[in-house]
Amino acid sequence: MRSAVTIRDVAREAGVHPGTVSRALNEETRALVNQETAARVLQVAEKLGYRANRIARGLKTSRSHTIGVLIPDITNPLFPPILRGIEDRLAHDGYTALIVNTDNDPKRERSHVEAMRARQVDGFISATARLDRELLDEIGAGQVPLVLVNRSVEDRSVSSVTVDDRRGIKLAVDHVVSLGHSRIGHVGGPQNLSTGHQRYLGFVEAMQAAGLQVTERNVAFAGYFTEEQGAAACAALLAADPEITAIVAANDLLALGCYDAVRERGVRCPDDVSIVGFNDMPFIGRLLPPLTSVRIPHREIGTAAADLLLGQLAEGDGSANEVLLAPALVIRESTAPPAR
Amino acid sequence: MRSAVTIRDVAREAGVHPGTVSRALNEETRALVNQETAARVLQVAEKLGYRANRIARGLKTSRSHTIGVLIPDITNPLFPPILRGIEDRLAHDGYTALIVNTDNDPKRERSHVEAMRARQVDGFISATARLDRELLDEIGAGQVPLVLVNRSVEDRSVSSVTVDDRRGIKLAVDHVVSLGHSRIGHVGGPQNLSTGHQRYLGFVEAMQAAGLQVTERNVAFAGYFTEEQGAAACAALLAADPEITAIVAANDLLALGCYDAVRERGVRCPDDVSIVGFNDMPFIGRLLPPLTSVRIPHREIGTAAADLLLGQLAEGDGSANEVLLAPALVIRESTAPPAR
Repeated sequence: MRSAVTIRDVAREAGVHPGTVSRALNEETRALVNQETAARVLQVAEKLGYRANRIARGLKTSRSHTIGVLIPDITNPLFPPILRGIEDRLAHDGYTALIVNTDNDPKRERSHVEAMRARQVDGFISATARLDRELLDEIGAGQVPLVLVNRSVEDRSVSSVTVDDRRGIKLAVDHVVSLGHSRIGHVGGPQNLSTGHQRYLGFVEAMQAAGLQVTERNVAFAGYFTEEQGAAACAALLAADPEITAIVAANDLLALGCYDAVRERGVRCPDDVSIVGFNDMPFIGRLLPPLTSVRIPHREIGTAAADLLLGQLAEGDGSANEVLLAPALVIRESTAPPAR
Repeated sequence: MRSAVTIRDVAREAGVHPGTVSRALNEETRALVNQETAARVLQVAEKLGYRANRIARGLKTSRSHTIGVLIPDITNPLFPPILRGIEDRLAHDGYTALIVNTDNDPKRERSHVEAMRARQVDGFISATARLDRELLDEIGAGQVPLVLVNRSVEDRSVSSVTVDDRRGIKLAVDHVVSLGHSRIGHVGGPQNLSTGHQRYLGFVEAMQAAGLQVTERNVAFAGYFTEEQGAAACAALLAADPEITAIVAANDLLALGCYDAVRERGVRCPDDVSIVGFNDMPFIGRLLPPLTSVRIPHREIGTAAADLLLGQLAEGDGSANEVLLAPALVIRESTAPPAR
C-alpha cells in the first residue's frame, strides 16, 4: 500500500496552514475559509488523493457516522423498502447504515447490539418486534439515540415511527362488511409482538363497531408471521367455523398462508372465502388472485425513522417523538360479496 | 454518559496484569492465557460492563471488522437473500456489513466507495453490475480485498461469485423447444451489464444448438432490468413478429413486464404465448400465472462471496478465485405447448 497523504501534505502543496486545510475539508466549517482558498484546498486534496481518516476523526469527535439498524429478516419483503428509506435519508447526511438480521431472537439481538456498540455506532434504528424492555436496556436507551420502527413501547419514552395498525384493520373489516360479509374471521399475528397485538385489538374494535361478535371461534393466532403459520391458523379457523366467508389476516404472509389453507380445503378465493392482507408487499397485486391488502407507506416509514434519529443526533436531546403514519386499503380481487 | 470501563479497571478487579486482560479478551490470543484466568477475566469484564473500543483497536490493527457491500437496489427481490447469505457468513467471523444502494449510478457508486474507504472497511463485496473497470480502480482492487457478486471481469483479475448465465438460458430455451415452440423471442437485459450480455449470448447459442435462427426480429433489449422496460421490449418484440409463441426473458422483472405487455395486447399466457423468467424471485410461484423461471441459489451466492472475502482477509494474498454456481429450471404454469 502507498503511504497515506496527510493534511500536512495538502497544506504544503496548497501553500496554506494545516488548520485551514482541515476547516476547508469539513463541510461544517468550510464557510470559515476564504472561498477561493477553500476551492484550491479541495482541488489539491483531490489531486493528491487525500482521504480523511474517519476512524481517527471518530476518536476525536466521538462520531463514527454509522447507524446500527436492527431488522428481523431482510428477506421479509416488508423490510427492503423501509431500509431503502432509512439508507437514502442517512446517506443524505453522510451517515451509513450497519444492518443486521436478528430473526427476533433475543440472543442474536444481544450479540449484534454488543458488536455495534463496540463499533461505536452513533445511534440505533430498530425494527425488531420484541415487546419487552430488555433490548432497550441493552441498547442503552437514553444514552444512545434510538428510534423504533413499526413498534412502540407502552410508556412512550422512546421515539418511534409506526403505522396506525388499528385503523388499518378497521379499513379491512369495514370493507368486507360493506361487501355483505358477517361471518368474519381473524388470522392474528403473534401476540407478543406489538403489530400482532394491535391488529388483533383493532379487529375486535372494528367488529364491535359493526355490531358483530368476536368469539374464540372466529379468531386463530399464528405463532410467527409466516406463510406456514398463516396456513395452520387459517385451517384451524375454518375447522372451528366452516361458515366463515371472509378472513382478515394480520399481515400478507399470513394471508398467503390462508390462500394455501383455503385451496387445500377445496374452497375458492374469493368465490367462497374473501381474504384481506396487511402491508401491501411488492408484487401481491400480481398474485393468483391479486390480494386486497392494507397499504402502509414503507419507504416513508424508513425516511421518517432516519429523520428522527438525525434530529436527535443534531440536537443531542433525549426527548421522544412519535410519528404515526396512516394506512390505506388497496382493493383487489381476493375480496368479493359472499356467495349466498 | 457514565465513564467507560478500561482494561486497567478489569485488570485491577481480576488481580492480573492489563496485558493478560487484553490477551484474554481477544479470541485470537485467548489460548495464550491460563484457562482459569481467562474465565475470571471474562467474568469480571462482563460484570463491569467493559466494552472494547474497537475504533481505537482499529487504528492499531488496521481492522474495522466491517465490510462494504454495494448493491444496486435493496428493493429488487434478488438481493435480500444474497445479502442474508453475506451477512450471516460475515457475522459468523465477527464482521458486519455496511450496505449501500448505488442504483447502478456511477456517481452514487463513487461517493459511496469514498465514504466506505474513509470508514476503513476491510474489504468490499460488490453486486453492482457495471462492466467498466472504473469502479474497480476506485475500490483500489489489489490493495483492498474485493469480491464481485453476479458479475465478473473479463481478465479474471478479481474474485467473483457468479451463476452460469448461459447454461441457465439454455435450460429455458431447451424447455420451450421441448414443448414444441420454434418461434421464440428474447427480451434481453441491458447489454452493458454482464448478466444481460451473458444471457443474450446464451440465448443465441441455445437457439443455434436447437437449429433455430436468431434475427433482429426475435430479440428486443430492455434498457434496465425493470417491469416497465420489460413491457416495452416485449411490446416491440410482438409488434415486430406477432407469430412468436414463446418468450425467454433475461430476468423475472422483465418477465413480469412481458405479462403486462401480453395482457395489454389481449394475448393469453400460456395459451397464446409462453413466458420464462430468470432468478426465481420469492413469491413468483404464486403469480397469475405462476412463472416458470431459472432458479439461482441466492443465499449460497452471498455465503460464497463472504467466504471468498474472509479467505482473502485471512491469507492476505491477492489471488483471484472464481466460484461458478449452477442454475436450475423451475417449471410452473407460464409455459405450455403452442396452441397450433
